[in-house]
Amino acid sequence: MPIYCPTLLPKNHLPENLPFLPPHVGMNRFPSLNTAKTCTLASSAVLRRQQFLIRALLGGHRDHTHQKIRMQGLSSATGTNSDVDSESILRAITPVLDQSRHKGQAGKVAVIGGCREYTGAPYFAAISALKIGADLSHVFCTKDAAPVIKSYSPELIVHPILEESYSISTFEEKDRRHLLAEVIGEVDKWMERFDCLIVGPGLGRDPFLLDCVSEIMKHARQSNVPIVVDGDGLFLVTNNVDLIRGYPLAVLTPNVNEYKRLVQKVLSCEVDDQDAQEQLLGLAKQLGGVTILRKGKSDLISDGEIVKSVSIYGSPRRCGGQGDILSGSVAVFVSWARQHAIAEGNLDISPKNPTVMGCIAGSALLRKAASLAFASKKRSTLTGDIIEFLGRSLEDVCPAV
Amino acid sequence: MPIYCPTLLPKNHLPENLPFLPPHVGMNRFPSLNTAKTCTLASSAVLRRQQFLIRALLGGHRDHTHQKIRMQGLSSATGTNSDVDSESILRAITPVLDQSRHKGQAGKVAVIGGCREYTGAPYFAAISALKIGADLSHVFCTKDAAPVIKSYSPELIVHPILEESYSISTFEEKDRRHLLAEVIGEVDKWMERFDCLIVGPGLGRDPFLLDCVSEIMKHARQSNVPIVVDGDGLFLVTNNVDLIRGYPLAVLTPNVNEYKRLVQKVLSCEVDDQDAQEQLLGLAKQLGGVTILRKGKSDLISDGEIVKSVSIYGSPRRCGGQGDILSGSVAVFVSWARQHAIAEGNLDISPKNPTVMGCIAGSALLRKAASLAFASKKRSTLTGDIIEFLGRSLEDVCPAV
Repeated sequence: MPIYCPTLLPKNHLPENLPFLPPHVGMNRFPSLNTAKTCTLASSAVLRRQQFLIRALLGGHRDHTHQKIRMQGLSSATGTNSDVDSESILRAITPVLDQSRHKGQAGKVAVIGGCREYTGAPYFAAISALKIGADLSHVFCTKDAAPVIKSYSPELIVHPILEESYSISTFEEKDRRHLLAEVIGEVDKWMERFDCLIVGPGLGRDPFLLDCVSEIMKHARQSNVPIVVDGDGLFLVTNNVDLIRGYPLAVLTPNVNEYKRLVQKVLSCEVDDQDAQEQLLGLAKQLGGVTILRKGKSDLISDGEIVKSVSIYGSPRRCGGQGDILSGSVAVFVSWARQHAIAEGNLDISPKNPTVMGCIAGSALLRKAASLAFASKKRSTLTGDIIEFLGRSLEDVCPAV
Repeated sequence: MPIYCPTLLPKNHLPENLPFLPPHVGMNRFPSLNTAKTCTLASSAVLRRQQFLIRALLGGHRDHTHQKIRMQGLSSATGTNSDVDSESILRAITPVLDQSRHKGQAGKVAVIGGCREYTGAPYFAAISALKIGADLSHVFCTKDAAPVIKSYSPELIVHPILEESYSISTFEEKDRRHLLAEVIGEVDKWMERFDCLIVGPGLGRDPFLLDCVSEIMKHARQSNVPIVVDGDGLFLVTNNVDLIRGYPLAVLTPNVNEYKRLVQKVLSCEVDDQDAQEQLLGLAKQLGGVTILRKGKSDLISDGEIVKSVSIYGSPRRCGGQGDILSGSVAVFVSWARQHAIAEGNLDISPKNPTVMGCIAGSALLRKAASLAFASKKRSTLTGDIIEFLGRSLEDVCPAV
């Protein structure tokens, strides 16, 4: 089944010979359309379809051959070029599969999230990790959320260990402390086995639950386990920056609003979109070298030393849950990048920081999968549809064998 | 839909004429590639793809004709040749289907497993048994796990009868004994109907629960019901070997770590990979003739009398849950092998021990299904994908009609 079918468009709207163009053809193939993009016709349905056509040809694929992901780089305000070849990074860090490997070597990740209110988000993050190629994916959630998350898929290992305040409202302070210690003990039994934690998808903001999660993060840090922080995990971290300050294995993945609160809290100023890269660099540096993936039209990534951008075309669909795919995806790639870095001793690619590499790979893969899903499902595209394209998107860039 | 499609590979990477080769073509069709396997080019992407192609042709199938599964045999340290023709065994023991048969004749199996923490594993084992061809598949699990396992599939019969210590923490000793008797009574009502028990998938290690399972195993043994032991069932058995010692209808399916603990406990030494077959033979003999399937790159199988190996190419994907498929699969084939042995009086194939035949058949079928799933889903392959190929894998070897 072709993922992108030009015949869906009225023929008289197609640029000459377009169906016969190779799928990697670039924007410069259509100078007149580029120009048109800014003209007053921009709002017409005809032009919108033409623009979609071009974007689909840039980002989408019509067959399974090895094709280029095109990156539209941004220039940093400091003059550093932030263009990034995410395809090379994906290939460099994705492990080769062979018969001698055993269960767990391709990655064991754990999501800390899922409460009475939210169950989809931790599922999306955890199943995305498996679909990309992790061997084991755990979820640590509240007792209410566990049966639901389990029921989404038998592939996940779901631990019903967290508690929210409403379920312990009659507890005295010493009972709460005892319970908190029990929760930490349950996670600690597993901690050393994990290659990465994902803190935040569907976490909620219950005070007792966030106290537990703060402790879990401290233990992860002591064990040198990387932590990807998203969603309500960012709410927690923004209010308690010391949880991640100075931890080089922490990755924050804020969206527009989460980034705004982080900038206000840490830099005591407003977001500056003119000097976006400079400001991101400063924020990551101010946080002691954590890695930040600022989600947006282009994803910007910085560890306080460098700034990189990923601008490959994704999808115009903004259904909820895509951030959860990203957090699961980044967690797997950070795990692989660390393995790669440890195995190789030194890396022959740039950037060399495994958390930055993981962010670049995760961002690029999500965008590619979203593009393929949108080409297939259009307005109907849901997060689950994008997850189904993660495997093929990685396979296109980096065949398993 | 073709499972393996050579057109997915760039054409210049294909050995000449490969798409037109008959699907049963063997390794000797590509002497140059065999040689290349060991040369310095081994790490190149081109060669990896070629090697995959060969493996896919050996292990995969492009149509439903009756084709050869190739076995790469190992020689036993005693000089006994352990090559095994799993295809003949699959054909010999798989029952012919006809209109005169009634429900249950193709096998009734039961999984003892599933607790608050684990629900996927018992589901995988139980549904695999059905997908291979068993008529009825039961799960005996804890009250917490039952609704979740039921939600995975309406095809299973799920009994919420087991208890974990946390749910009976206020019980006095006599109440516990009463509850234990009740649990055993519930299982005993069904015991005589089962052709095989699978003890361990997602069982957990709760002390009270393991006490219940020990009693269930004793009752199964009294009723001469075969028992396949995996996962936490092996933890139980390793700490109490008398549960299975001298029971010829017991099958243990340890992975690397479980086998290590078993060897240490029973033989009071470390695993010897140089004399792997000899040691396995000794271990099975020491346990009084139980059958052990040691999972690994090649699966080794011994009942203390003979050693056989299954080395058919499976998949390099090591996602969790494949061991659960194996336990469900072995249970069905052990049931069928026993029926066959009883019906025929004496068998005209070797080996003659039904538990050994069941292990060989189960191992070969899982590997074949994993190979087909991987050819289709690559790194994204999950345990559920492999289960979907069990039926076709058996059909390829042994058509239903």
